[in-house]
Amino acid sequence: MDIVFHPIGFIRSPIKEKEGAPIQSSRSTIEATVEVFTEYSPGLEGIEGFSHIYLFYHLHRAEQTGSLLVKPFLDDQTHGVFSTRHPCRPNPIGFSVVRLIGRENNRLFICGADMVDGTPLLDIKPYIANFDVFKVTKSGWYQSRKIQ
Amino acid sequence: MDIVFHPIGFIRSPIKEKEGAPIQSSRSTIEATVEVFTEYSPGLEGIEGFSHIYLFYHLHRAEQTGSLLVKPFLDDQTHGVFSTRHPCRPNPIGFSVVRLIGRENNRLFICGADMVDGTPLLDIKPYIANFDVFKVTKSGWYQSRKIQ
Repeated sequence: MDIVFHPIGFIRSPIKEKEGAPIQSSRSTIEATVEVFTEYSPGLEGIEGFSHIYLFYHLHRAEQTGSLLVKPFLDDQTHGVFSTRHPCRPNPIGFSVVRLIGRENNRLFICGADMVDGTPLLDIKPYIANFDVFKVTKSGWYQSRKIQ
Repeated sequence: MDIVFHPIGFIRSPIKEKEGAPIQSSRSTIEATVEVFTEYSPGLEGIEGFSHIYLFYHLHRAEQTGSLLVKPFLDDQTHGVFSTRHPCRPNPIGFSVVRLIGRENNRLFICGADMVDGTPLLDIKPYIANFDVFKVTKSGWYQSRKIQ
């Protein structure tokens, strides 16, 4: 069964190579621009009211190795791909929570980029603390990871 | 440009109609089962170490209205679809953070379901508080919403 999505824009980022990308948006202070195709501009109405937004995108530069066991950037042990954020995964869907600095028509200026330049954008949703902050009790391999 | 994904499993949920679905997983205590296709089972290694996980899925029951202005369930005003979590969106990608109760081979038992039965699963990632908790300063229309 094919599920077909289409880019709604692209992310213009100073990160040109995936090797140099920050591990997570929460560890990044890199600024970037989200260019939404003008046909989708009306969908951005009200977005500037939110300090943080989710970007969902296609990890278009991730190699499709087919492997289900991967070594995360923060560990020296392999783990099942679904217990990691590793980009090489069966459906290479990426997401980042970034700080929204401002908007100019169909362009969003963000801080916290961790994706490479030219990343195809699939969706944007508001980050809402009441919905998105959870009290975790266990963080698996991340708790005992080898790399900080 | 087509971006093609394939289900890695299905979510078996007691929610049979989208009309009765909880508004967000954070407001739900409904239990459900994530059935990952057995070919992807190795990718689940280590997942049981995490108390909370992200499920990414296809909002397969969302109507494709083409409208970029929607009325969220929690407000009586319309907003741009990207400043809401409304299911009718250009790329109907849904996500929920749910509590992982347990795992039995290729099946995950979760609490916090807000998706309908039969929802095609696209990806699973661990929720990691260090990465995923952000201090918001503005929550747009949500702050002044009409419905609690």
